[in-house]
Amino acid sequence: VPRTDEFSLIELFTQAFDVSPTPFGPGDDCAVLPPTSKHTCVTTDSVVENVHFTRQHFSFADIGHKALAVNLSDLAAMGAVPQWMLCSLQLPNHITTSQVRQLARGMSKLAALHHIRLIGGNMTRAKALSITLTVAGETSLPILRSGAQVGHTLYVSGTLGRAAAGLKILASGKRPTSTSLLRAQTRPNPHLAVGHMLAPFMSSCIDVSDGLLQDLGHLLKSSRVGASLKSQLIPVCPEVQKIFPKEATQWALGGGEDYVLLFSVSPKRKAAFERTCRRKHIQVFAIGECTSAKKLLLDGRTPQSTLGFSHF
Amino acid sequence: VPRTDEFSLIELFTQAFDVSPTPFGPGDDCAVLPPTSKHTCVTTDSVVENVHFTRQHFSFADIGHKALAVNLSDLAAMGAVPQWMLCSLQLPNHITTSQVRQLARGMSKLAALHHIRLIGGNMTRAKALSITLTVAGETSLPILRSGAQVGHTLYVSGTLGRAAAGLKILASGKRPTSTSLLRAQTRPNPHLAVGHMLAPFMSSCIDVSDGLLQDLGHLLKSSRVGASLKSQLIPVCPEVQKIFPKEATQWALGGGEDYVLLFSVSPKRKAAFERTCRRKHIQVFAIGECTSAKKLLLDGRTPQSTLGFSHF
Repeated sequence: VPRTDEFSLIELFTQAFDVSPTPFGPGDDCAVLPPTSKHTCVTTDSVVENVHFTRQHFSFADIGHKALAVNLSDLAAMGAVPQWMLCSLQLPNHITTSQVRQLARGMSKLAALHHIRLIGGNMTRAKALSITLTVAGETSLPILRSGAQVGHTLYVSGTLGRAAAGLKILASGKRPTSTSLLRAQTRPNPHLAVGHMLAPFMSSCIDVSDGLLQDLGHLLKSSRVGASLKSQLIPVCPEVQKIFPKEATQWALGGGEDYVLLFSVSPKRKAAFERTCRRKHIQVFAIGECTSAKKLLLDGRTPQSTLGFSHF
Repeated sequence: VPRTDEFSLIELFTQAFDVSPTPFGPGDDCAVLPPTSKHTCVTTDSVVENVHFTRQHFSFADIGHKALAVNLSDLAAMGAVPQWMLCSLQLPNHITTSQVRQLARGMSKLAALHHIRLIGGNMTRAKALSITLTVAGETSLPILRSGAQVGHTLYVSGTLGRAAAGLKILASGKRPTSTSLLRAQTRPNPHLAVGHMLAPFMSSCIDVSDGLLQDLGHLLKSSRVGASLKSQLIPVCPEVQKIFPKEATQWALGGGEDYVLLFSVSPKRKAAFERTCRRKHIQVFAIGECTSAKKLLLDGRTPQSTLGFSHF
């Protein structure tokens, strides 16, 4: 991308966003953020062509959406409220302005929904399309992975196996049997409201990006506890169960990319927590308990494999 | 990169850094930053293989250094003091752990020099090596591009044309005629101390990454003023002048990547500013003045071309 094209592409991209100064937004050497009395949670994640998505299966709007969604899910897991984002784009030479605009719109729609402002970024040419976002949110009480204790109940904030099923449908190349599962893969929905509303009750939290068992492993390691899960409690998505009866359980345990929250609640807070869930119509699923055994057991046995997210 | 390898590569990478919690550093869904009473300046920039560097000409330590240096230069241009960074790595399959370690060390050495802490990041595989950093610094008084006024003097904080000459030497494939110019290209030195010490006197500032005339153009546009430069005042690097007498002036005006600061000082602050420069042994070069003409003149004429940074 020659520099002049770069500047006009940047303009084209930022036009899709409601870029408000903060106090000083894009257009200077840095964005400038005002002093804050809250904790700032900040994370960065990339999506790369032919690793995290293929153009055959994802529209440019999907790619823009997903690049932001995977980052917002990390904010959700802290109980943080989104504030700002920086966007680094690597664009191949042959990309068209229309494709850049679609990508920007897919991203800006999700950004607007969660009131996160684009405050800066950069653009460079590269062989493959990739998007790296840095997003930040505020909270007075960040929820860490390390706070789970023996006896705390483990919950997930949604059904599992959906994104893996969506990937399978995409990869099959057949007419989609379920657009809802397809969209779980291409347009994941970060659980920000859930994270923010339930944060006061959580002793620990992580988002399920690599797969339930693998992410639970991270949480347990940080918290230095074990866990005992019951397979009958794992909320396998009913639609996945119906279309892929053989793979459904495996995908729910290890498929990844579902971007629901996995968290723990202490016995003391449990009653108030469940009341809040009912009142706010938040669906959560208790899947097991934290134990002193320092290992992860499923129906009393060590799971055969924790699998983990597999790229294209 | 399979997930397990990814986690061990992340560990290998972070080992090179002094990773102190802030209050909660890498290892959670987000890094958590404490409340702050200052302004936070934040920027992101990428370096991409075969666009910003080639492995033929850059060592892995060079790549790590330069990826951070180009970002720190943006903090310098705000007068900010570096605080934290996030690192997104895209690694090709064939990269070795030793190469990742060298890259980390090149970056961590510069990070330690400027007391900037690695607080998080991510790693993914990709076809080409690329590094995207987000860096942040604090200041109570951010210096913007937009504050230059008619009658303010324009300065640069170092000699020019060095990085372009270094690139030429690299590209020639010949035995280097000057290691100092080579290092200007491979190991640029962000002017953080200069930016921070002189910020109280600056009315506007930008770093010279795209080339003097192009970056001055950005500053003038933001400030809504013009400028009149004298070519005899442009500090062409004497070593460049000697080795490349034909190209030296052109490179000083448009070569880019010198990462010196370009800034303006009001007539009122000029005496105190120049006293401070002498006392602190900071070398600066007055190159011209801001004018009401709304255009950029060099020796009274519009420059033929503003060129701008050219990638590999």
